[in-house]
Amino acid sequence: MAKKQYNVGLIGYQFMGKAHSNAYRQVNRFFDLPAEIHMHTICGRNEANVSKAAANFGWTNYATDWRAVVENPEIDIIDVATPGNTHAEIAIAAAKAGKAVWCEKPIGNTLQEAKDMLDAVQANGVHHAVFHNYRKAPAVSLAKKMIEEGLLGEIHHFRGVYLQDWIADPNFPLVWRLQKEVAGSGTHGDIAAHIIDSARFLCGELSEVCGLLHTFVKQRPIAGEIDDKMGATASDKMGDVTVDDASMFLARFKSGALGVFEASRFAVGRKNKNSFEINGSRGSIVYNQERMNELEYYSNDDPKDLSGFRVIQATEASHPYAGNYWPVAHIIGYEHTFINLVADALVSLHEGKAASPNFVDGYENQRILDAVERSSETRSWIRL
Amino acid sequence: MAKKQYNVGLIGYQFMGKAHSNAYRQVNRFFDLPAEIHMHTICGRNEANVSKAAANFGWTNYATDWRAVVENPEIDIIDVATPGNTHAEIAIAAAKAGKAVWCEKPIGNTLQEAKDMLDAVQANGVHHAVFHNYRKAPAVSLAKKMIEEGLLGEIHHFRGVYLQDWIADPNFPLVWRLQKEVAGSGTHGDIAAHIIDSARFLCGELSEVCGLLHTFVKQRPIAGEIDDKMGATASDKMGDVTVDDASMFLARFKSGALGVFEASRFAVGRKNKNSFEINGSRGSIVYNQERMNELEYYSNDDPKDLSGFRVIQATEASHPYAGNYWPVAHIIGYEHTFINLVADALVSLHEGKAASPNFVDGYENQRILDAVERSSETRSWIRL
Amino acid sequence: MAKKQYNVGLIGYQFMGKAHSNAYRQVNRFFDLPAEIHMHTICGRNEANVSKAAANFGWTNYATDWRAVVENPEIDIIDVATPGNTHAEIAIAAAKAGKAVWCEKPIGNTLQEAKDMLDAVQANGVHHAVFHNYRKAPAVSLAKKMIEEGLLGEIHHFRGVYLQDWIADPNFPLVWRLQKEVAGSGTHGDIAAHIIDSARFLCGELSEVCGLLHTFVKQRPIAGEIDDKMGATASDKMGDVTVDDASMFLARFKSGALGVFEASRFAVGRKNKNSFEINGSRGSIVYNQERMNELEYYSNDDPKDLSGFRVIQATEASHPYAGNYWPVAHIIGYEHTFINLVADALVSLHEGKAASPNFVDGYENQRILDAVERSSETRSWIRL
Amino acid sequence: MAKKQYNVGLIGYQFMGKAHSNAYRQVNRFFDLPAEIHMHTICGRNEANVSKAAANFGWTNYATDWRAVVENPEIDIIDVATPGNTHAEIAIAAAKAGKAVWCEKPIGNTLQEAKDMLDAVQANGVHHAVFHNYRKAPAVSLAKKMIEEGLLGEIHHFRGVYLQDWIADPNFPLVWRLQKEVAGSGTHGDIAAHIIDSARFLCGELSEVCGLLHTFVKQRPIAGEIDDKMGATASDKMGDVTVDDASMFLARFKSGALGVFEASRFAVGRKNKNSFEINGSRGSIVYNQERMNELEYYSNDDPKDLSGFRVIQATEASHPYAGNYWPVAHIIGYEHTFINLVADALVSLHEGKAASPNFVDGYENQRILDAVERSSETRSWIRL
Repeated sequence: MAKKQYNVGLIGYQFMGKAHSNAYRQVNRFFDLPAEIHMHTICGRNEANVSKAAANFGWTNYATDWRAVVENPEIDIIDVATPGNTHAEIAIAAAKAGKAVWCEKPIGNTLQEAKDMLDAVQANGVHHAVFHNYRKAPAVSLAKKMIEEGLLGEIHHFRGVYLQDWIADPNFPLVWRLQKEVAGSGTHGDIAAHIIDSARFLCGELSEVCGLLHTFVKQRPIAGEIDDKMGATASDKMGDVTVDDASMFLARFKSGALGVFEASRFAVGRKNKNSFEINGSRGSIVYNQERMNELEYYSNDDPKDLSGFRVIQATEASHPYAGNYWPVAHIIGYEHTFINLVADALVSLHEGKAASPNFVDGYENQRILDAVERSSETRSWIRL
Repeated sequence: MAKKQYNVGLIGYQFMGKAHSNAYRQVNRFFDLPAEIHMHTICGRNEANVSKAAANFGWTNYATDWRAVVENPEIDIIDVATPGNTHAEIAIAAAKAGKAVWCEKPIGNTLQEAKDMLDAVQANGVHHAVFHNYRKAPAVSLAKKMIEEGLLGEIHHFRGVYLQDWIADPNFPLVWRLQKEVAGSGTHGDIAAHIIDSARFLCGELSEVCGLLHTFVKQRPIAGEIDDKMGATASDKMGDVTVDDASMFLARFKSGALGVFEASRFAVGRKNKNSFEINGSRGSIVYNQERMNELEYYSNDDPKDLSGFRVIQATEASHPYAGNYWPVAHIIGYEHTFINLVADALVSLHEGKAASPNFVDGYENQRILDAVERSSETRSWIRL
Repeated sequence: MAKKQYNVGLIGYQFMGKAHSNAYRQVNRFFDLPAEIHMHTICGRNEANVSKAAANFGWTNYATDWRAVVENPEIDIIDVATPGNTHAEIAIAAAKAGKAVWCEKPIGNTLQEAKDMLDAVQANGVHHAVFHNYRKAPAVSLAKKMIEEGLLGEIHHFRGVYLQDWIADPNFPLVWRLQKEVAGSGTHGDIAAHIIDSARFLCGELSEVCGLLHTFVKQRPIAGEIDDKMGATASDKMGDVTVDDASMFLARFKSGALGVFEASRFAVGRKNKNSFEINGSRGSIVYNQERMNELEYYSNDDPKDLSGFRVIQATEASHPYAGNYWPVAHIIGYEHTFINLVADALVSLHEGKAASPNFVDGYENQRILDAVERSSETRSWIRL
Repeated sequence: MAKKQYNVGLIGYQFMGKAHSNAYRQVNRFFDLPAEIHMHTICGRNEANVSKAAANFGWTNYATDWRAVVENPEIDIIDVATPGNTHAEIAIAAAKAGKAVWCEKPIGNTLQEAKDMLDAVQANGVHHAVFHNYRKAPAVSLAKKMIEEGLLGEIHHFRGVYLQDWIADPNFPLVWRLQKEVAGSGTHGDIAAHIIDSARFLCGELSEVCGLLHTFVKQRPIAGEIDDKMGATASDKMGDVTVDDASMFLARFKSGALGVFEASRFAVGRKNKNSFEINGSRGSIVYNQERMNELEYYSNDDPKDLSGFRVIQATEASHPYAGNYWPVAHIIGYEHTFINLVADALVSLHEGKAASPNFVDGYENQRILDAVERSSETRSWIRL
């Protein structure tokens, strides 16, 4: 019997549009799922670009008006992969139209937007998911499993960094990601959000935070063309950078654990170091997204003379997700975290269950982002 | 104007069938090429299995008789991804039928088979390619570029290992890869072949070899079902292992460089360590397939006080192939080496040029494999 | 002509006494200096122990009354290597007696003590030095040189951790290092002090801090015998832990750089990870005391395609201190940082110059420790 | 009661003289042994240099005639640390004089010399030891212990390299280490000898070898002054390099294990990489002298999902030798391997037992070196 097909309408076709499209294209190739994705429509404002994206990425249709896509009765899932300032409007409309809403992170540009979005999906009883894709790396899911099984014992420390260097050059242009009205926030919302998700996923909720946001380069050449990270070109005119370049904060977890978080786009040499270390009473783990197929693990249960951090290659068939791909140590990459996320989201949608992560995670993440921002402004600890 | 489509007929649907299928499915998604692949037909003897593979992997048709596929006038390319004992027959038939022939490595089970295959493609003037996919990792292609640009200077040393451990357990069953009549050889042809390809690709031809093949476990439980690496189950009956477990040899290159090669399936803890180090007069490089997005590089031109092996993340848009995928340090995986290879092969086919690597590489590789085997038997150096 | 000999009186014979003794014994063996150390007297309260230490470590005399040593006219240098609660009294007496005073860190148990000590050495015009020995690792001194030469450009980020795990077990006994009246503080003063010294040494002064001290295990078995880290044995009776187990804080540097600091004795698996990363506009460096012969360096000046963190082995004859020891990559260890420090201190004493680091560094370090403690109490940022 | 003192006469004062002197100076400081070393006399031909060495290194006397030292009735131990062409004469004379003979490796410049030396110490019934110091790194001794306890199971593979780059520059001068009449052999005897010792120590005796020695640069500028590695200066005149630059060979062990060995002074970027990997049926280990405080270990007994190579820091008090030095992860260095060796040798001498390693090891090592040389000449396998 043919499996049920879910029609997706994807709003956005840039970097995230490419990653999500690939996930939809591949998910049923690698996973044996009870349902199937159909790549129904991709949507963007620029017809020339979106039609090209549709062909490149393998979508059946393209559209330039997201409202039409949202209203299209054939569409089951609206995937919101646009810049942050448009998330709320699209997601709320989709929820009202009864669609499943799957949204890039951070879900809103403000906490209020996130709240409105969460309210909308809950009020309309629709399925919702958020693309905190790094959870879905096999090594991170393995970390979760290990913690749930008690292998780390009581957690004492979480320390996470997300370090990049793509704007360390003061002449790098003022792209949309550096403009608060479009991007919502800078490093903080873009990449500190990922560390926060790792922390919440693995160590539970925070109880208080104290942090600092900072902008090193306050004016930059206006970009000749507003494009994604990779495509911008500089011009002579200068404009104000209205977001943070770096974000750092201390935290307490409800469990009693302590946390240190730092994100920066000025860490020269660090291209995409999304990394964390967790120390518990029974063991510790270390993860680095740049070597995402590996998880370092120290077990306090090992004989003292024979103990040390070991590098688990999270590529065994018995590791989360890994068995769907290739033999052991034939590694997977960045794009597979999206495939894994879509597989999980699709199954939960099909089975009428909540996705994980979903808008609650998106909202809780944003509560923390917001609290850190307020902490930075008030120079004080903020209780969550 | 629509691009020309090339119809592929893929013979084989197991591990390599899955990897090749993925490459055909993805190549035009990530690469902007002058031509397109159409996944026309996948072929295997077991109809239930092959029909399922066709659906899973995205093929338009399936077939159970490879001869029919080879004779099908719609087919442009025959991809041979079956066990080694069937390569020659299929490839030669395909060449005679005027098809492009793309073949898994090692191309034949014997040197004679490889010779016959090379003769066939040359005699029939058809396009030919061999799946030495590891060349196509961005980091390995970067290594090639660096050597061509002289960054390593004169090469003094190549040392390569390919270490796995999947048969270290003496109770692991007697799968087809351990039977000479099917697999041709063991570790030697399966994975030493990859080191040889890296060596030839980066350092040129060998002039002589001296080596040793060894089988540690000479009898194993007969597999309940002859399946791929992953799927075999053991039974009570014992059978003879007729291939080598480990292969090691010394070599001289025509350039005057020295080489050390070692491959084993008994290196406990090494899951897929396909790694090499090359030392030249100006610098050195180190590569490990398990961290395939990285290339270690030492430059003798650096100030002495500031020199050291650096880890290049071969994920910049300016690195070979990498710009087709994701932003810097958003890594790719094993499967992408096949996509890159298919992209190159397709372009060369479309442009009427020789593919690289092709059957000449397959044959030369096999000459070396064969010479090492003879060296092991005669306990002497063999000139190539 | 015979070199001038400086007679040392060492107060303390435990862990630090052993390390300092070794430095005095070895310094003139490895360094060709204008003056010499004579190991005159070692002093401790327990005669049996100190006499044994004198013999083991190579001291000419031993004593049980530190006041007699301080007053001994033959003694040129008083080295204070006792627990922190006795530093101030001994050091001030030594300063008044006109001796050079070389003291373990942190120099006092309170900021006031540190102030009094600094005042005393300055008022009496005596030579003073503090044992922030990690500065003297060749790799750290190389880092300093690189920063001074501008190789890192403008510094944006300092992130330092000092992670140990020796009290993660809640049954580990209440040794003196866990008692505020003896040790002054816990993790904070013991090991966060080292990160602070690295930060000040390499990136200059801090302008403000915001931090948190925390004690995970608030009661522990009373140690059967108050001994050094290694020697304590537990008993049935419980006592209060009066110091912090973990310390973490954010900071701004006067230069505009940002800092994140974390120290813990609960980082299971981390035995002695004293590590920092510094990101500047032209490059970055990473150091880990556990691999103290190495310095990781990323240069933004490298060709983009060939850039990456390189591992400099700071063992070349041209690297700081390294030429005094062994050929390149024949590594040195922990004890050599003390030898290097003593060599520098001896030369500065002989030449009538200020040592580096000295009590000003000790005092400034303690100002920061103190500010973090107050920040933790007041839950606010503290300006320095 | 005073411990018995053993008077040492050290012949040679260059690199090895410095390392041995340090070991004698430090051994009773760090180890609590039943006997003591007294640094009686150091001997060299150049009085100005040797007198300076005596003062620097801490010897009571110096001498310029080694025969007088050998004949001196006060001397208990003759340590032979001169270039290889003088070992045999000195060691045999010392044996005849009834002294304990401790000798640098390789013990002789030829197999015959080594045989004569072994015969001499055995015939005269004197204590003998050889400075294969790398055995005495805590991590290597731990490896030995682990293998003896069966943690690696049956050994299948040994692969060792010793890579340096100090003569990769063709203008590096013709120092004594490049002259066969002084050094005996080149890379082969100097550093391949160390790999061989590691292999024998950990995996037992070899049964056959097949190898190749090669000289890349056949003429070099004659050194202005014949000095140790570090001190030579080049001149205009060219001379013949009469030793090998690189050595590589395959081997079988008596146990059935296979071995691959490679040593080179042309591995640009490798400063002192003395490294090996051993794969057994139950686990594997990896060692690299440049990170000599660490031992990588993979245990096949770990749960499959949690297995990986772990980095043991061989610095616990419970690890071999480590408890004599510093707390965990406060690392030791190159020089400590000599201290450990001397401690062991002294104890065995005092207790009337055979040292390990001793001249039997020196001779067996040289048998292998010699067999590889013959194999290289005859282009064939040589049985041992």
